[in-house]
Parts: sequence; C-alpha cells; structure tokens
Amino acid sequence: MKEHFILDVKTFNKKIPVRKGTDILSGLIKGNIFITSSCGGKGICGRCKVKILKGDFYSEPTGKISDEEKKNNIYLACRTTILGNIEIEILPETIIPKKIEEVFEKGEEFAREIYNIKELFSFSPLVKKLFLRLPPPNFKDTLSDCERLIRSLKKFEKSEKFYIDIANLRKLPNILRNSFWEITVSYVRDGEINEIINIEPGDTSKKNYGIAVDVGTTTISASIVDLNKGIPLKTEITFNRQASFGDDIISRIVFAEKKDGIEKLHHTVTETINELILNLSKTCNISIDEITAIVISGNMTMVHLLLKINPSFLRKEPYIPVANIFPLFKSSEIGIRINPNGILAVVPGGYPYVGGDITSGIIVSGIYKEKDLSLFVDIGTNGEIVVGNKDFLVCCSASAGPCFEGSGVKNGVRAIKGAIQKVKIDNEKVYYETIGNGEPVGICGSGYIELLSELFKNGIINRSGIFISENKRIIEEDGMKEFVITENENQEKIVITQADIENLIRAKGAIFSAISTILKTIGMKPEDIKKVYIAGGFGSHLNIEKAIEIGLLPDLPVERFKFLGNTSLTGAEGYLLSEEFRKLSEEIIKKLTYIDLSRSPIYMEEYLKSLFIPHTDYLERS
Amino acid sequence: MKEHFILDVKTFNKKIPVRKGTDILSGLIKGNIFITSSCGGKGICGRCKVKILKGDFYSEPTGKISDEEKKNNIYLACRTTILGNIEIEILPETIIPKKIEEVFEKGEEFAREIYNIKELFSFSPLVKKLFLRLPPPNFKDTLSDCERLIRSLKKFEKSEKFYIDIANLRKLPNILRNSFWEITVSYVRDGEINEIINIEPGDTSKKNYGIAVDVGTTTISASIVDLNKGIPLKTEITFNRQASFGDDIISRIVFAEKKDGIEKLHHTVTETINELILNLSKTCNISIDEITAIVISGNMTMVHLLLKINPSFLRKEPYIPVANIFPLFKSSEIGIRINPNGILAVVPGGYPYVGGDITSGIIVSGIYKEKDLSLFVDIGTNGEIVVGNKDFLVCCSASAGPCFEGSGVKNGVRAIKGAIQKVKIDNEKVYYETIGNGEPVGICGSGYIELLSELFKNGIINRSGIFISENKRIIEEDGMKEFVITENENQEKIVITQADIENLIRAKGAIFSAISTILKTIGMKPEDIKKVYIAGGFGSHLNIEKAIEIGLLPDLPVERFKFLGNTSLTGAEGYLLSEEFRKLSEEIIKKLTYIDLSRSPIYMEEYLKSLFIPHTDYLERS
Repeated sequence: MKEHFILDVKTFNKKIPVRKGTDILSGLIKGNIFITSSCGGKGICGRCKVKILKGDFYSEPTGKISDEEKKNNIYLACRTTILGNIEIEILPETIIPKKIEEVFEKGEEFAREIYNIKELFSFSPLVKKLFLRLPPPNFKDTLSDCERLIRSLKKFEKSEKFYIDIANLRKLPNILRNSFWEITVSYVRDGEINEIINIEPGDTSKKNYGIAVDVGTTTISASIVDLNKGIPLKTEITFNRQASFGDDIISRIVFAEKKDGIEKLHHTVTETINELILNLSKTCNISIDEITAIVISGNMTMVHLLLKINPSFLRKEPYIPVANIFPLFKSSEIGIRINPNGILAVVPGGYPYVGGDITSGIIVSGIYKEKDLSLFVDIGTNGEIVVGNKDFLVCCSASAGPCFEGSGVKNGVRAIKGAIQKVKIDNEKVYYETIGNGEPVGICGSGYIELLSELFKNGIINRSGIFISENKRIIEEDGMKEFVITENENQEKIVITQADIENLIRAKGAIFSAISTILKTIGMKPEDIKKVYIAGGFGSHLNIEKAIEIGLLPDLPVERFKFLGNTSLTGAEGYLLSEEFRKLSEEIIKKLTYIDLSRSPIYMEEYLKSLFIPHTDYLERS
Repeated sequence: MKEHFILDVKTFNKKIPVRKGTDILSGLIKGNIFITSSCGGKGICGRCKVKILKGDFYSEPTGKISDEEKKNNIYLACRTTILGNIEIEILPETIIPKKIEEVFEKGEEFAREIYNIKELFSFSPLVKKLFLRLPPPNFKDTLSDCERLIRSLKKFEKSEKFYIDIANLRKLPNILRNSFWEITVSYVRDGEINEIINIEPGDTSKKNYGIAVDVGTTTISASIVDLNKGIPLKTEITFNRQASFGDDIISRIVFAEKKDGIEKLHHTVTETINELILNLSKTCNISIDEITAIVISGNMTMVHLLLKINPSFLRKEPYIPVANIFPLFKSSEIGIRINPNGILAVVPGGYPYVGGDITSGIIVSGIYKEKDLSLFVDIGTNGEIVVGNKDFLVCCSASAGPCFEGSGVKNGVRAIKGAIQKVKIDNEKVYYETIGNGEPVGICGSGYIELLSELFKNGIINRSGIFISENKRIIEEDGMKEFVITENENQEKIVITQADIENLIRAKGAIFSAISTILKTIGMKPEDIKKVYIAGGFGSHLNIEKAIEIGLLPDLPVERFKFLGNTSLTGAEGYLLSEEFRKLSEEIIKKLTYIDLSRSPIYMEEYLKSLFIPHTDYLERS
C-alpha cells in the first residue's frame, strides 16, 4: 500500500506530497528545494541539516548532530525517514542559493579581458542568421521553395550541401509568401553540411544570440553572446544545485546509478541553466527566441548528466565516456529552453576526467602553440593539470574536493560580498579584508590559502596542519578544535576547524602532487616550466606567494604565473564564435596524452609528500 | 454555444459525436468512415449518398438524388446538415474498401518480373544493418563508446563522417556492455554522412526490411522488401481513402485549404499506409521493428499531403512545390509506423505535376538511356507523358480523371475479381469476360476501353460518344441513357451511362492530346516513336488495338508497345535498394524538361480534336 504524506517546508511555505518511507532529503529534491549534501545522502558529510517542527518520523542516530543541535530538533535530512505528515524548517546555511548575486572576483569576466576571441580566431558563429530576399518564382523560374532558398544561401555559403528538417519544410511555403519572399534563415554548419534550423519572416538577422556555459561540479557560469558582433554581453554565475546529490563527481555518478538518479541530476542541471538563460535574456532585453545556440563546456561527468547519458562507466575501469567528440543536438532534445529550433553543442573532451573544460583551457591559455614548456592548472572541485607546448600536451586530473570553491568547509563561501579574502595573523590579533568590505559572511578560496599560510607562519598549526599553540582564539566545538577569525560577539562567528585544515591540506596536496607526478613522468623539473596559467574561480585575487608557501603551487618566480580566470566559459564562447576554434578543439584532444594518477607508480608517494605545509620537496631543498 | 449530437452509423454500429451544423460527410470522416466523394464535398458529383433512418437534419435540394431515392430517404452526405441525433446507413457502393482483396492484373507484380533492380543497379540498400563485435575497452584502448563503434563501422564503410543522435547516444553505454560488445547497427547514408539510426543488442542484421510505396491519387500500393537479399516479398494494394475528400488532385488541394484540411488528408493517407505495412508485415511474419526504411513514390500533391505540407501553391501560378529533392526524414516524424528509428525517403520529382512516380517510371522504363525516341505513358488519375531518349527528356501532365482506375464512373471497379475486363458486342448480344471468371461486379479500366470500342464499332454510339441507336439494351434511368451489359435480372445490373462515356472520352482525349502536343512541341511525329511504354494499373490486360481504336494511344504498330505495370512502385523499390538508383533519380529530374499544357498554344486545339472516337487526326489520315 502506498501511503502519501505532506512534507511541509515552512521556510518556503511549500507542501510537498511524499510517500511514506521517503527520506527528507529526497522529499525536498522532489519539491525542487536543494540543500547542500556533500556526500549525496549517505549520512557521511553531516551537512544536510534540517529542523523538524513536528510530525512523525524516524531518524538514524548520527555523530554529525551535536547535543545542542539535538535539543533544537536538528536532524540530518538524508537519515530521517518520513512516517507521517511532517513540518520542517530549512537552515539558511544549507540552502544552495539560486544566484550568486555579487561575484567580485569575476573570474568569468577576467578571462575575457585578456583573451579576445575575435582577434585570435576567424569569426564564424556556430549558428548564423542571414536575411535573404528571394526572387519570387515565375513561369521562367519555377524552382521549388526549398531549392530557391538554397540557391540564395549558396551565394553566402560555398557548401554544396544543405539540409532542412520536416518542421521547417512544413512552414516554408507559407512563410515565403506571407513575407513576400523576404526571410531570415538560421543555419548551422555541421562538417560539410549546412543545416537550416529556422526560417523566420522578414529580417530578424540583427538579433542572433548564443549562450556559453561552463558547467562545473560546484558552480555553473553562463554568458550571453552577440553572435553578430562576436562579443559576450553579460555573465551570470550560480551554484550547481546537483550539490544536493553529492559534492564531487564520484558522489554524483553514484547517485546517478540509483533509480531515477540520472533523470533527477539531468533535470536539476538543465533547470539551473534554463534559469541562468532566462535571467541573462531578461537583463539584456533579449527574447529567448533570439537565442539560437548554446555551447556547453564542462567535465565529462557534467556533460553526461546534462545530456542524460549514463555516467556510470566513467567511474568503472577502464573509465570510458560515451563520446569524446559529441554531435550537434537540438537544444530542445536536451531540455534547454532557447529558440525551439536552437542548437546545443558540447566542447569535445579528451578523457573521462579531463573534459571539454580543459580543452577550452588549453586553447584559451595558448599553451598548445608555445615553444616553451607551460603548466596549466584549473583549480576547481576537480583539479586538472596540463603540461606541454606546441609539440606535446600531457594531462592528468586530481580530485581536490570543493573547499577552494567555498564548499565542504565549515564557513566556506564563494567569492561573494563579505567573503574573507585576505588574512594577516599577528599572534592573537587577526586582520582580514572582505570582498566589497561587507560584513564578514565566510571565507572564500583565496582567503583559506592566506589563512593556512598565516596559521602556519604564526606557529598556530604545525607542518601537518594540527593546532599546536595555546592561542586563545582556538576553541573547541563539538569535540573539534577551531580557530576563530571574527573579533566580537555581535558578528557572525567565522572559524576554520581542524577538519577544514585537513581538508584544505588534502586539496592542495592533490593539486601539487599531480603537478609533480606529471613532471616526473615526462622527465621534467619544476624549473623547466616557463609559464604557469591558473584557471578557475580564483580569478586575480589568489595570492601566488602564499599559494607557494602552503604548497599548492610549485615554487617558481611569481612573474611566471598568470591568471586566466574561468577559461572553460571563455572556451565555450570561443566555440560559439569561431569555426577555427571548433576545429582546433578536435585537434587538441587528439594531441592530448593522459596520465592516470590512480595507476601511476609515482603518484601515491608524491601525494603523501605533499600532505605537509608546504611539502617535503620544499623541506629537502631548503 | 456548441451543441453536440450523435451521428449513429448503423452499418458499422458506430456512434460518432459531432457538433450541431456538421455535414454528414465530415462527420463520417471524423469517425474514420470513408465514402466516395469525387468532388470533395461540393455537392457536384452526387456520389456520397447515405440513407437516413431517423433524426433531425436539413438537406439541400439537389438534382443528384432521384425521386426513387428520395422515397428511400437517400440524401447526399455532403449536403446534409446534422441538427440533432441522427441515424444513418451507408450504401455499400459508396464505401471505399480498406483492401483490394484480389488483384488479378497485378500491375505491381508485373513490373517487377520484367525489371530486376539487382541486375540493373549496384546493390546498396537505403538502410544497412551491420553486426559488429567491438573489442571491449581496456587501459591500452580507452576509446569512447561512440568512437569505438565508429572505428569498427569504418571497416565496412569508407566514409569519414558518422552521425548519431541523442536517443541512440543515450542508450549506447548500456547496450554495449549488456550485449558484451556485440551489437547490430542500422545506418543510412545521407550524402557523405553515415547516420547511425539504431543500435540493437546482439545480431539482428539478418532481419532488415523496407517498405516501398506508390501513393497514387486513387490507389496506394505497397511492397515489403528484404533489404539484405534485395528482393520484394509481397505487395498489397488499397484505395486511397483521401477519395472521401475529392477524386482528383485539384479537389484534394482545395480540401487541404479548408480548416484542418491538410491534417485530415495527411492522417488519412498515413493511416492507410500504416494499415498496408501492418498487413504486409503480418503476412510475411516480419516484426514492425525489423522494418527500417520506407520509400515513397508519388505525385507531388500526394507527397505534400503525406508529409503534411501545404500543397496550395501547386495549383496556384506559377505552380511551385516545396521541394524537388526531399531530405531524409524520420518515419515517426511523418506518422508512419515502422521501427521508431526508421527512415522515410521520397523519390525526387521534377515538376509540380510530374513527380517522383514519373522519375521512377523514367528509370524503370530505361528511356533515359536509349538511343531511339521513346514514349512513356503513365495512365492514372493524372496521366503523365514523357518523350525522350539518352539525350533529352520532355514531359507533361494531363488530368485524365480516375475513370480508368474504376472511379468516377457508375459501375467502375478496379481490376478485382469479377471486374469485366473484356467485352464483345454483336448487335444486341454482349459477350464479356470477368477477372477470375467471378460474378460480374463492375467494369475495370481495360473493360471500359473495349466497351467503348465495341459500342462505337456497333454503331451504338457516334464519334462523339452519343447513344444513337435504338438498341434495346439502352435504357433510361434518372433522365440519363445507359447501356446494360449484364444479361439477366438475377445479376447485379452493370451499365455504362452517357455520362460515363463522356467521362471516358474526355479522359482518353486528355492523354492522347498530351502525347500529340508534346510531339508537336519538339517537332516530332508519332512515327518517330520507336517504343511506347505503358505504366499504371492496367498491367498486361490492356488491349492495345482497342486503345488505339478509341484514340487513347497513338496509332503505331502493336509490337512497339510494352507494358510495365506499376513503375512507380518498382521505382520506390529501386530507391530502397540501390544508391546508384538514388543518385540517378536526382540526375533524371535535372535532365527533365516540362511542357505546361495549360500554357501551350497547341494543347487546346489538340484536346478538342481528341474528343472524338478515335480523334480527328485519325480521320484526316484515313
């Protein structure tokens, strides 16, 4: 018998019908409410806390809930089974916000400033719009509607091959005559074929827009691009609400393997993208119908989930993606709402853990055409590393976790207003700067790096990251030591915990050891690297010296480092705007070699050596 | 206010809900009951008679209903408005049968016997199925699923370009692994691209079938073809139920211009084809899923309606079709039920009134490669004529009407069992032969030709076709003279009426004058024609001498004539089976020149001269 109950979420005044035995986390997702759940509902991370006001339920005992919380009726949503109608409140810190209102570091904008696609590549947008005045037929010129259209198109496109689908063929005769043979044709070049995707009456060619999207594991960035002028107009960034199903790629894939898992993950990401598109189009006063193309750049797991393709074999040996080069899709087939005839393209990805986001990064950084050896590092939830030059490109992937993106650490936030981004510790005094000088709301990635460096330099933590001093700012909460950053009781208490520090050291260690493994594998030394390109959400605010001090980045002269910001998004824009870029992306993935760290004989040793501040290599040298 | 009533069709025990004010014909169509209506519901043809048992209605006065019929409550369905619940009976003679049970002349089979596609063209079916054993991936061979599949396919197909759609991509990872990397791939070559349309586990390559369809204005023929062996297995023929919306192309187009007209015509023809496919697959014990392709050969109007494309501009100057060469479609997009991933192709057509059926005929007849001048005549509801040789091809189209196909004449039937096909008149004695020696049920096309010749030779009608003798077989019914063919009162009374004769003379005149116009236009004489190819439903039973005697065909030695049967269907089979055939069809339409009879200065004179038995040219010469 299937009993149904109401999960009443007072915070949003939303009543969600659920089946008896559903856990609260699943119930919330069913109701389109997304809260953080780093482990994807396994009861491990202890982040999906909710307050139960009343109702019938059973909650598994867990060490993740403190006595204080127990008194306040706080439970883990994923471990609590609904047995009757139930009323709950969502804790504000668990909500995955729909929009990152103010991003000050603007990694997204940053990349674009230093990288002008139109200057670097021949301009040829993925979808073109052409206004055509067809000569009306007469008894001397009785060409069919379709062939007449193609005859005129051929004056602009040299290709011999054109394709039109049934939907456009059906509307063609009436549109041509109602518009007095003046029409706008949208078409996409797919290999040698030009596919006519839309026919509109009159001249709409002035309005042709595309969407570039970077689908990250933790955040999703999208920009709206003028496909006539070749320039991005506006960018928006939001959290990937798939975080409700797990923080990292592996938890997402595990969730996808559950019943309806793929559908849920697919739906979550497409709806997030659809909201970004809607916001961007509203802000820029552009109609959804005027958006004819969308390009996705992301890691392979994100791409599989977006396309609703089983990602399971990405985590099973020998780790095989469904495709490296994806065909063009109709956006509507993927559930993306732009013009119903719009096209969705995916930047090709070389390997299961080095996807289209890195193809984008390689092109945007330009390392594929340089003579000198370069290092490209994309620091995200997954850290991808590429070493190479015009002759070779070697890559690998390291799971850093989401802490540099402000997730999976107690007071972590993205680089939003009020995020602590600079820290100086002088014994028991802490000086800090927040983004936009706002009231402190948490610590962002660059803040954590400075904090770690300062804690170490002040002897508050040892090389292993363990609190060792008697600093009065170190307190204990729920049996865990933490260091308090904020000054007075009126402020939100912002801390870094022992667990946070261990997390951060593991994250920086994963990146650093990946770099050293790749270099050792190809027989190079850090000094051989002439340029280091840093991509990812950090943008320009990362303090290179401190990143070197904690052992995140190799110890090279600061002037060799260059920030590129979100190269995945910039790459998606390039793919939208240039056929040369699109062809290059396919060449890059053929050129790219992959080192599987989990099968590398060097990696484990390198990783263990990197779990110190900064790392043992540094010690050996100094 | 929208009142709804019940149209209760007692004949089929079917209750159709209709709106107040609907005419009975439209109501019947809504209920999927198709009765003949040559004029498409204009009240002109007087064929859509029904018997009203009781109910509330208003019927317009019409001369098409006799006093006798009035007494029996017979009304024209198209002129009768439903004002309340109503009960009716359908008259058996008005029902468009769902299946032509026994076709004895078998024009369809006939063409195939004399024309072996596999001998004439290189064999390369439209959709191919390949069984592939893919090498499973390992750490040394980590190619993606999609690229792995393509790598194996390339061993069989030289093309560099492969395309796969989202539906197949989505199922690919699981199918590959569940089937232990043994799969069957169905793919279609579209220009230079091979599109993967279906992936199935295991080896299903032995079962690959296609459907060839000739969509005629009056009849629809379909055959099921083994795409591995290249041979047709079975053919079925049925009436085109669109006849409920009008006999000829123009009435259909006019009907299509009404509200929901295109949808109704489209639905009618696709459902008819779907039934043929279902019957063929059942008879041959083939699953619908094993049918991967369907090819349509037909006139442009039929193709437009099948594809649900507005045919209106085919009848408006300067007569423009939507396309001459059609792209490949997904059969499901057209509403055709074969494998859901199946392909629908259309044989390209040169001109609005010389379509793919004639392209088929030109190829099947072989006139495009002969040195001598040939004449190709396809006698159907539309008569198409092609004159030419290896150097040139000229064509035209004449509206003959459906009487040679047994429609639009009082006792007309197709060449079914019991159809009168041979007639000899000796004064007041009539000798006739029926197909299969069945009880006479009506007169088929070849029967009418013999009948016309005999009536003329016996002095019963004059050169203009008017009854002139006192023959006691001439009776008058409803103010119209008719000649009774059947002998006794126990038999079904079968007659030819004065109107039938006029109809037949106009039909034969249309064909003959089209031939003479085309010859005069290119400066040739009938004697220059070395071969005459006759296509269409007549098959081998047409009596050439008599066809010459009545002035349907030019007066040439009988040995120059050759019957080809249904070349449109044979052409569709060729298109299914050979890429060479497909390419040739595109070349043929580029080579073909069209003479528009309605704008020809010669045609009207030729037509008037041909409205005699046989025609005035004959008189002048004799």
